[in-house]
Amino acid sequence: MAIPLPKLPPSFNPLSHPSPPPPLSPPKPSLLVTLTSPRLILSRTLRSTNLSNTRLPSATKDDSLSSIITELEAEQEAEEEEDLLRSPLHRPDDDDRLADRWREIHGSDDWAGLLDPMDPLLRSELIRYGEFAQACYDGFDYDPFSRYCGSCKYNRRKFFGSLGMDNAGYEITRYLYATSNLNLSNFFTQTRGSKTWSQKANWIGYIAVSDDDATARLGRRDIVIAWRGTVTRLEWVADLMDFLRPVASEGIPCSNPEVKVESGFLDLYTDKDPTCRFCKYSARQQVLTEVRRLVEQCTKAGETVSITVTGHSLGSALAMLSAYDIAETGQDVGVDGEKVAITVFSFSGPRVGNGRFKERFEGLGVKALRVVNVHDTVPKVPGILFNEHVPAFFRKFAEGLPWSYSHVGVELALDHKRSPFLKDTGDPSCFHNLEAHLHLLDGYHGSGVRFFLASKRDPALVNKACDFLKDHLMVPPFWRQDENKGMIRAHDGRWVQPERQKIDDHPPDMHHHIGRLGLDKDH
Amino acid sequence: MAIPLPKLPPSFNPLSHPSPPPPLSPPKPSLLVTLTSPRLILSRTLRSTNLSNTRLPSATKDDSLSSIITELEAEQEAEEEEDLLRSPLHRPDDDDRLADRWREIHGSDDWAGLLDPMDPLLRSELIRYGEFAQACYDGFDYDPFSRYCGSCKYNRRKFFGSLGMDNAGYEITRYLYATSNLNLSNFFTQTRGSKTWSQKANWIGYIAVSDDDATARLGRRDIVIAWRGTVTRLEWVADLMDFLRPVASEGIPCSNPEVKVESGFLDLYTDKDPTCRFCKYSARQQVLTEVRRLVEQCTKAGETVSITVTGHSLGSALAMLSAYDIAETGQDVGVDGEKVAITVFSFSGPRVGNGRFKERFEGLGVKALRVVNVHDTVPKVPGILFNEHVPAFFRKFAEGLPWSYSHVGVELALDHKRSPFLKDTGDPSCFHNLEAHLHLLDGYHGSGVRFFLASKRDPALVNKACDFLKDHLMVPPFWRQDENKGMIRAHDGRWVQPERQKIDDHPPDMHHHIGRLGLDKDH
Repeated sequence: MAIPLPKLPPSFNPLSHPSPPPPLSPPKPSLLVTLTSPRLILSRTLRSTNLSNTRLPSATKDDSLSSIITELEAEQEAEEEEDLLRSPLHRPDDDDRLADRWREIHGSDDWAGLLDPMDPLLRSELIRYGEFAQACYDGFDYDPFSRYCGSCKYNRRKFFGSLGMDNAGYEITRYLYATSNLNLSNFFTQTRGSKTWSQKANWIGYIAVSDDDATARLGRRDIVIAWRGTVTRLEWVADLMDFLRPVASEGIPCSNPEVKVESGFLDLYTDKDPTCRFCKYSARQQVLTEVRRLVEQCTKAGETVSITVTGHSLGSALAMLSAYDIAETGQDVGVDGEKVAITVFSFSGPRVGNGRFKERFEGLGVKALRVVNVHDTVPKVPGILFNEHVPAFFRKFAEGLPWSYSHVGVELALDHKRSPFLKDTGDPSCFHNLEAHLHLLDGYHGSGVRFFLASKRDPALVNKACDFLKDHLMVPPFWRQDENKGMIRAHDGRWVQPERQKIDDHPPDMHHHIGRLGLDKDH
Repeated sequence: MAIPLPKLPPSFNPLSHPSPPPPLSPPKPSLLVTLTSPRLILSRTLRSTNLSNTRLPSATKDDSLSSIITELEAEQEAEEEEDLLRSPLHRPDDDDRLADRWREIHGSDDWAGLLDPMDPLLRSELIRYGEFAQACYDGFDYDPFSRYCGSCKYNRRKFFGSLGMDNAGYEITRYLYATSNLNLSNFFTQTRGSKTWSQKANWIGYIAVSDDDATARLGRRDIVIAWRGTVTRLEWVADLMDFLRPVASEGIPCSNPEVKVESGFLDLYTDKDPTCRFCKYSARQQVLTEVRRLVEQCTKAGETVSITVTGHSLGSALAMLSAYDIAETGQDVGVDGEKVAITVFSFSGPRVGNGRFKERFEGLGVKALRVVNVHDTVPKVPGILFNEHVPAFFRKFAEGLPWSYSHVGVELALDHKRSPFLKDTGDPSCFHNLEAHLHLLDGYHGSGVRFFLASKRDPALVNKACDFLKDHLMVPPFWRQDENKGMIRAHDGRWVQPERQKIDDHPPDMHHHIGRLGLDKDH
């Protein structure tokens, strides 16, 4: 923030190092906490259901000298944190290595050796893809007094520019819509007015393709699919039917009827409404046809292609399901007959399917790296009782149950209590917040390594849509908001909501593509 | 709002007439309610403490034909209201009569014959002065995460322009500050940070003077004093000490020790803090010196001058007190020895002093027109038991009590239930809202005359800082907000609160003026 404070020389600021600093002597207890490995943290989570009560040892109250030292240190830390909010952002300059390393970064070796210590390039790529998912929140019209409530606020061609992501290096080729779903009703947002852009649809994400410059830098043409989730309203978790259904029941061509996913996710992915211009095709039909078109077009041009699917929260479930579906239906096969890499970078995602789904997902070669905060409850559902951690001797029985779920892929477990920027709060929507995860990623370097921001990614972003930063940092909570809720003053002085010129729907040749892929036959 | 709806011909729209329409046949029950005179409404208020429970007779449920008609009418009304939100604003063109009529409009005849039916020129002038008071809210920095919390967001030279009031025709010559007051602590707003523009002061209003063009139109040089009140936080009412104190105790040169005002208002007006650049002078010292300077300057130039004091809520109490003080100390006397007119236009104001204060106020020739909403409780305090309505035989006893209050001047009582734009709510902060009062003024034409908007003043303004408009009008509640809470993205990509160049304080020759007026002697 713009508050003038005495600046400390860089050597005094343990948060400003672009690379891991040498251990300090004497250690600063509150920053030099000993980190356990992500996997250890996860297993500890399972033994203690209430991790938020875990406290690190601290100075006893009767030890007055050490309590004074602790106070002084706390003050210095506070100033250092404030300082950091005003220091220049550090941009990683190892982008040029991406062209060589992208397959590894996208999980070709299941991220072996990249998570602990944390690989800097993987870290910055995770943040980059997380920002694509975050854009789904930043672009969404939540205002129930807007007639465009539930749509994307920006035209797809102006999307990245409107969000200050002019340099994203991607072009959005398609907006994705879902049909209001009775079982997930509180996930959907509807206008209170009688006139609306759509009675049935909600904007739920987008598909984007890297432009030529970015493609050169990335080492391949990258197709990004980003799914919107929920920022603060976690009630959808309670709405989950917590009931597994065969993917084949919704037309996904899987020969094994034991491959099952949570019923609500499957509905959300496959529901459509013929009366609505935006959701007359299911999210599934929208994604598969667009991915097919892009994969064909790019491989025809002889390009190397990757498909990267990202999403947060409920969007993570859609990311897993759609990535699996793309592979299951063979949309990942180019005109040359070669499969393109499919990777999911998911954030705070719930479990999606059963053990058979996990086997099929991974068997198809789809890679998934799941970033979670150990204090967030969403990744613990559904299947809070029966999941991948059930002891082996019990698993055969558990797998027969319609409530036995399994996570897929590899987990990267972060802990928000390690960040000196975040305050002690009991608000679960903070623990679940995507911007908070991106902040934690920037500070994560591996087990046993102190939290410091690798790219100095702006901590102020954390409070965009929550109240998680320490108060002394003076970043307003929930600061992301439109001027006058989008109302503008017309020439005659009247305050009005401007009309939108055009809301992106679907290409005119959708029927042709749906027919060609056999998607008109789905259930 | 920008929602396309079938337009009705103007003759079908009872809300769009610029002058009172002839009675319709058959009458539309919900709009053609019989209005009682403002004074009758007030006396009824006193008999029934809970006016909000009063219901007008409506069609019985078993009368199905009339209920269908009522529904159809309600639908048509809804469309008409929505229509009005899109029709061009009507600007009164009788401004040119102001130069002749301003003394009458400012109460030279105590508004006799101007209130029922409502004089159109008085109505538009009341709205104009109310907008000066509203500007105090719109310009105030309420954000506890801003280091400028409690100040005015804009430099005084850019104030009207920043608020879209470029054509106000006034220049602000002075900002007014008050000292944080223990007894009215919840009226004051303070930053949560350690660094702030001031630990003690809050911006509390301004003094402005009409420019040459406006002066020609108004028929005199107009000095406006506008005092800030409270938008939604009504807790300050509970904080009132409800204890009368002689004005003389704070140095106001009134020879009668029985002239008393509420202790908290007197403190707010006279407190100062020598350690603070902004409130080292009391509000009283700030106002009196500036008014003296302006009155001398203008009368020296041979100009006719008026002093118009306005305020809402707690600001209304400061308006009454400062207007009285200006007259009591003779700051209203020009260099020619003539008194200039002092008028208070107050909105939703509480009682300020006792019966002796009222007599002295009015005896000094200060005029006050108080605009109230009969459902608002603030004008009923303090003195909810002992006030100007106590029967004559009891008054002598009551006047001796330290809790016996009296309103001053003339009341114009409005009733928000007459506006078809406002919804049925139990929220007292809506009843108290200043923008709602300005809306009600625009629709008020006198007893027995239907509510319709004389200037078609934008009803959307009502929801600036409350949730009072009917939902179907689709104006977002609390819509007035800064983009990203004032955070901006710096060149390096970091989100920061911009530094303010200069915060207006006080002229360097204040000591000289204070000494000249003998204000350095106040206790």
